[in-house]
Amino acid sequence: MAGRIEGPDAPRIIRVHPADNVAIVVDDLGLPAGTGVAAGITLAERVPQGHKVALTPLAKGDAVRRYDTVIGTAAEAIPAGGYVSEARLVMPEAPALDDLPLATRPSPLGPPIEDTTFEGYRNRDGSVGTRNLLAITTTVQCVSGVVEHAVDRIRRELLPRFPNVDGVVGLDHIYGCGVAIDAPDAPIPIRTLHNISRNPNFGGETMVVSLGCEKLQSERLFGPLLPMGGDGGIGLVTLQDPANVGFEAMIASILRTAERHLERLDRRRRTSCPASALVVGMQCGGSDAFSGITANPALGHASDLLVRAGATVMFSENTEVRDGIAQLTARAATPDIARRIIAELDWYDRYLARGSVDRSANTTPGNKTGGLSNIVEKAMGSIVKSGSAPIAGVVAPGERARGPGLLYAATPASDFVCGTLQMAAGMNLHVFTTGRGTPYGLAAVPVIKVATRSDPARRWHDLIDVDAGIIATGAATIEEVGRQMLALMLEVASGKPTCAEKLRLWNQLALFNPAPIT
Amino acid sequence: MAGRIEGPDAPRIIRVHPADNVAIVVDDLGLPAGTGVAAGITLAERVPQGHKVALTPLAKGDAVRRYDTVIGTAAEAIPAGGYVSEARLVMPEAPALDDLPLATRPSPLGPPIEDTTFEGYRNRDGSVGTRNLLAITTTVQCVSGVVEHAVDRIRRELLPRFPNVDGVVGLDHIYGCGVAIDAPDAPIPIRTLHNISRNPNFGGETMVVSLGCEKLQSERLFGPLLPMGGDGGIGLVTLQDPANVGFEAMIASILRTAERHLERLDRRRRTSCPASALVVGMQCGGSDAFSGITANPALGHASDLLVRAGATVMFSENTEVRDGIAQLTARAATPDIARRIIAELDWYDRYLARGSVDRSANTTPGNKTGGLSNIVEKAMGSIVKSGSAPIAGVVAPGERARGPGLLYAATPASDFVCGTLQMAAGMNLHVFTTGRGTPYGLAAVPVIKVATRSDPARRWHDLIDVDAGIIATGAATIEEVGRQMLALMLEVASGKPTCAEKLRLWNQLALFNPAPIT
Repeated sequence: MAGRIEGPDAPRIIRVHPADNVAIVVDDLGLPAGTGVAAGITLAERVPQGHKVALTPLAKGDAVRRYDTVIGTAAEAIPAGGYVSEARLVMPEAPALDDLPLATRPSPLGPPIEDTTFEGYRNRDGSVGTRNLLAITTTVQCVSGVVEHAVDRIRRELLPRFPNVDGVVGLDHIYGCGVAIDAPDAPIPIRTLHNISRNPNFGGETMVVSLGCEKLQSERLFGPLLPMGGDGGIGLVTLQDPANVGFEAMIASILRTAERHLERLDRRRRTSCPASALVVGMQCGGSDAFSGITANPALGHASDLLVRAGATVMFSENTEVRDGIAQLTARAATPDIARRIIAELDWYDRYLARGSVDRSANTTPGNKTGGLSNIVEKAMGSIVKSGSAPIAGVVAPGERARGPGLLYAATPASDFVCGTLQMAAGMNLHVFTTGRGTPYGLAAVPVIKVATRSDPARRWHDLIDVDAGIIATGAATIEEVGRQMLALMLEVASGKPTCAEKLRLWNQLALFNPAPIT
Repeated sequence: MAGRIEGPDAPRIIRVHPADNVAIVVDDLGLPAGTGVAAGITLAERVPQGHKVALTPLAKGDAVRRYDTVIGTAAEAIPAGGYVSEARLVMPEAPALDDLPLATRPSPLGPPIEDTTFEGYRNRDGSVGTRNLLAITTTVQCVSGVVEHAVDRIRRELLPRFPNVDGVVGLDHIYGCGVAIDAPDAPIPIRTLHNISRNPNFGGETMVVSLGCEKLQSERLFGPLLPMGGDGGIGLVTLQDPANVGFEAMIASILRTAERHLERLDRRRRTSCPASALVVGMQCGGSDAFSGITANPALGHASDLLVRAGATVMFSENTEVRDGIAQLTARAATPDIARRIIAELDWYDRYLARGSVDRSANTTPGNKTGGLSNIVEKAMGSIVKSGSAPIAGVVAPGERARGPGLLYAATPASDFVCGTLQMAAGMNLHVFTTGRGTPYGLAAVPVIKVATRSDPARRWHDLIDVDAGIIATGAATIEEVGRQMLALMLEVASGKPTCAEKLRLWNQLALFNPAPIT
């Protein structure tokens, strides 16, 4: 992919790869019929922004190429300059999972990058926090009303006395009871909750509020409970404990326990840490046709730099890599890693089939308005954010990442589910690229939001951290924006608040529970 | 079942039905070996509170009867006075779904009850609210952070000017995007959200905050949108609307829209309404062996009184009726209703089987501590809350109830999922019985909580509204507590706050989404 858009003026259309036979319209308002967009090519009809123009005449059944990939076949004859709309594109079958290339494509990265640091909170287990937060894990949704009150009281009554603590976070969810807790798929939500409670931003402190009678007993979540105090000790408040006589007693129990954790958290200070301590979760949401040519390739470049600096970087979204699986298995560092990618996507195929759908259930109305005709095209633009590093490992849903390097974290593409699973994987920094715009944020991990186009970046000036749209207009290169992103990541990891943090915007956790509700 | 426990002193064990060969221990601390519990029966070993004592010698394989129902067979020989523990009880197979009795048991109720009224808010569609709330429906979780801020601002800045409005409720959930929205099961969460927004407590006003690009477009949720103002008009704020330049503009849009709804809600007043306008959702959670002999039969009596007064009353919890399905199909008012019950439970059997589990995935550690050995025993105690009225209809998950009469709302037993679905069914009053104790509450519908035993009722004095434990000690009859419950329901429906409302304790909505995440 070209690092800089060619031509002296801002381009009107962008072709991603020289072998492509379509290009997308850049102009915010689209382009009318009759517009000359390239040598000898005039638009046959109006084409909206982000949507595709045929660069050669296409006969019915001809392959339509974008990202040097067949994203479908022409449903009808389309002239050069014609609008390759969703209705005119027939989606291909998903690639089969047997006979994929296994670790066949060497991915030479540049030389290691040293001396890149940020100011973080070192944890006893070797991980590093980018924030210093008290987290309150809940075993079951029943307690969430009480925990919400307690969090509010902690914020108002305790936090002012512990100025080095950045905040308190209640880890609410709708799991924990009324669920088939011994189902084959139940380990996914259970280990997700377990690992979320161990996120590096919680400083190794584990505080839990349980009801008492629920299926997800605290022992089930954490193993035999060690008393609080030493390493791995847990501060547990059980609301049904006979000592909790009435609501105020419950709140007091929680506040007392919180205070002991806060005392320890408050003694922590930021120190210089190598960039290798970063665990970056990447995802995209509300994607459009620019995602794959501005924000995601720039993020891919930043990802490569991070990997060269020894960091752990995750990309995800099963349905958004499914059609590009051959790229992933080829880029896997070893055949075993390639086989683990295949196994995760095979499991996910079967999970979707159980609900009588397939990967085409992805793509949203907003994706389509933004020019993405189908999941194949969306996937090609999504995968680009993984850059060019070898894939060094696979993270099953709910598991903790074992870096360093570029990892495939096998999660659904749902923004909130993917973010929750990346948090469980140990992410201490989140980068989220968006085409249509989203106010998404997390209470426990800073989220840097990157717009694919300048228009939403300008409009949502206080919600979007980075405008990658300047790549489409030729004002900056992919590499320039990638380096800018990396610099911002290091600042945010060191404490600079993101837009979402300044506004205190955050989404609830959304556990991935493929097992039944009972 | 006996309305009053026999004997001059508080009983030490309770047998539910004369044909039963087990009874449960009443004493809070259980009873030690050697205690004489009935004529000629001495405990062979210690038996905890709520757990079962054999009243006759049982050979291995003998049927164990409670509620005049076989709840299992003896796994080993048990002497009279022996402890019939979970390990000594073999669970029977679930009853087959063919060859069930269809509407065979006439259920004569008492005469109609007239002149029972409460003070409610009449709606244009004929429903009646028990609270006067502004609800903000969200189409997708992405907007929840913004809506949370907006709700807070509305509460502080607008509500003081609208004193007749009881509050504002953000209808957050984790659905709306990243979901297989065309999957065969997707209509369940979609109609749930649609019907929740029409809950009688929202006064017929529909206000929606949408992101813009999500799968669950507002038109999909509500059909073609009518402008706000007339009947069925909707106040819609779309965050991606170009007019929303930045966060403050989004909040201002929401506040402006909210203000117009609040002006109309503020003009409403409570008026005298017949009890037939009540739509009561009943459920139990954290059940114990007393659920089926104190709180649930008393609620069943209250339910019968409500049905005689023309109200709509729902009971639910698929896995907790599955083993008693023959009782339900026999009590159905017509063979067609019986067949609809069977169809819902058959669907649910297959839903559980897709996840490789069955109805035995129900029962929690707390249930077992409380004496319930398996789902059959739990189900018998759960069904009792439906009283003795004929079953007049079935509500599929997410559908709106069409009363009057006793309806089976086919929901999972999960407290928060069941409550959410009963809210979608149009519930304007919720009664929740609990053995182990729960702080459960809903922001939009008052929840009356009933304890099965006096000990948790005393301990959680400000969280539990009704102590039904006095039935077990012989201090009151089932009918007396049932009438007390009905009186409280009418007061609460008229505006008296419940314990959960006083403490502002509420649980998030938990949508039932059997379709895949994408």
